[in-house]
Amino acid sequence: MTQINSIANRPIGVFDSGLGGLTVLKSLEKQLPNESFLYFGDTAHVPYGTKSKETVIRYSRDITRFLISKEVKLIVIACNTASSIALKYLQDNSKIPIIGVVEPVVRESVSNTKSAVVGVIGTRATINSNSYRLMFNSIEPEISIIEKACPLFVPIIEEGWAETETATQVAEIYLKSMLKSNLDTLVLGCTHYPILIPTLKKIIPAHVNLISSGDPVSKTVSEYLKEHNLHSKSDTRYEEFFVTDYPQQFNEIGSRFLGRKLSPVTQVDIS
Amino acid sequence: MTQINSIANRPIGVFDSGLGGLTVLKSLEKQLPNESFLYFGDTAHVPYGTKSKETVIRYSRDITRFLISKEVKLIVIACNTASSIALKYLQDNSKIPIIGVVEPVVRESVSNTKSAVVGVIGTRATINSNSYRLMFNSIEPEISIIEKACPLFVPIIEEGWAETETATQVAEIYLKSMLKSNLDTLVLGCTHYPILIPTLKKIIPAHVNLISSGDPVSKTVSEYLKEHNLHSKSDTRYEEFFVTDYPQQFNEIGSRFLGRKLSPVTQVDIS
Repeated sequence: MTQINSIANRPIGVFDSGLGGLTVLKSLEKQLPNESFLYFGDTAHVPYGTKSKETVIRYSRDITRFLISKEVKLIVIACNTASSIALKYLQDNSKIPIIGVVEPVVRESVSNTKSAVVGVIGTRATINSNSYRLMFNSIEPEISIIEKACPLFVPIIEEGWAETETATQVAEIYLKSMLKSNLDTLVLGCTHYPILIPTLKKIIPAHVNLISSGDPVSKTVSEYLKEHNLHSKSDTRYEEFFVTDYPQQFNEIGSRFLGRKLSPVTQVDIS
Repeated sequence: MTQINSIANRPIGVFDSGLGGLTVLKSLEKQLPNESFLYFGDTAHVPYGTKSKETVIRYSRDITRFLISKEVKLIVIACNTASSIALKYLQDNSKIPIIGVVEPVVRESVSNTKSAVVGVIGTRATINSNSYRLMFNSIEPEISIIEKACPLFVPIIEEGWAETETATQVAEIYLKSMLKSNLDTLVLGCTHYPILIPTLKKIIPAHVNLISSGDPVSKTVSEYLKEHNLHSKSDTRYEEFFVTDYPQQFNEIGSRFLGRKLSPVTQVDIS
């Protein structure tokens, strides 16, 4: 019993290539207010979205090892690219549970769509990986999937231009063809994209639901903890941030994502 | 004499965080048609422009070691960010000559400007490093420098959008304030930017000269080889490309930069 309690009181590890996963952390904090979190942003290697499968797996493996060495009880891959490419490898090679964003988001989308036409936008690596298409096919093969890689969205968001005319125009170019379809659900398949929601809503019809990663994955984590009696029983909670490049920019842009200051942030070299 | 000849016939190493340095390679090939080149693109870590000083120095040091192990006679840092941040460190810690892009570009700009107002655009890391401002100050302190970081230019170019209306609008936003000045010379302080020249020319007055890195740095390399009797005397020349991430994307976008297919391209892990 002591051992189970002590595992339950351990923190949850959350990792992303950089900042985007903070939108997932925000949702996790809200749904799981008693849990502690270690957030890892691989800012020396960001972005993953333009890198190869092998490279993304290598980086994800190193981060997972680091988080396990910090005694987390569970790891959330708060990055669509790493979830799409590295989840199976990490699950096969790890003793603790690892939860990615793709399956929770697809389940949420399947229960949401009535027209059975779902759009998916993400980085080039996520879209090229076919992970969303394959997951939809395995859960509900009758749904039509329309995918589009939007490589400019992340740099636009990181430049702080999410609500500019330029962002609207770029979104129009990327989504033009997709919006001619009968879609009623759009998966934001990159954890940066929730920052773009106000702009996306200007060009997307009101009946189209936008599905971000944060809430579906938090729900899955919560259910897992409940099922395995792993909810923290401790009275104290804490948070720690780790980055692989210098913390300054992470702090600046990160506070935009999380809506508050991040601390403490520690720079680590795990390569 | 034999030894001098054998050193002279060695290749020139050229490195960049990714693809941009191919615009410099193109110029080097043109000005030095008898030389052999090893090009190194650090595509697993691209971009450098948003990373910290320490991280850029570490990556640059690893690449320099690799190129020296391949017996190059001279190294060209075909990357403004690495030239701005790591040149001095690399020169202090290496036995072979290392030439960056900043000084040649500044000398060219100084001899070009008549209004004594020069604009500099580049990545955030290059602009934040102050390397151009410091170099202008040391060579010709009377020149006024107007700098602007343009973080969206690289992703726009890599998306293949260099000649779109979006590229023009983004350039207008970035350059608006600078173009109100009396500048007659604009330094393209990032080796990607030559791809944007047709778009930049739409919004920049015709009397403003655009200074890319390629030609000034090639001239400096040529002078150095002549001065030290290091021009290749071999009848055969060759080229080889090394990348740290998978070669496919490098090949695709790279051919746009170089105007021909790249080969052979080898993926290496030097971390």
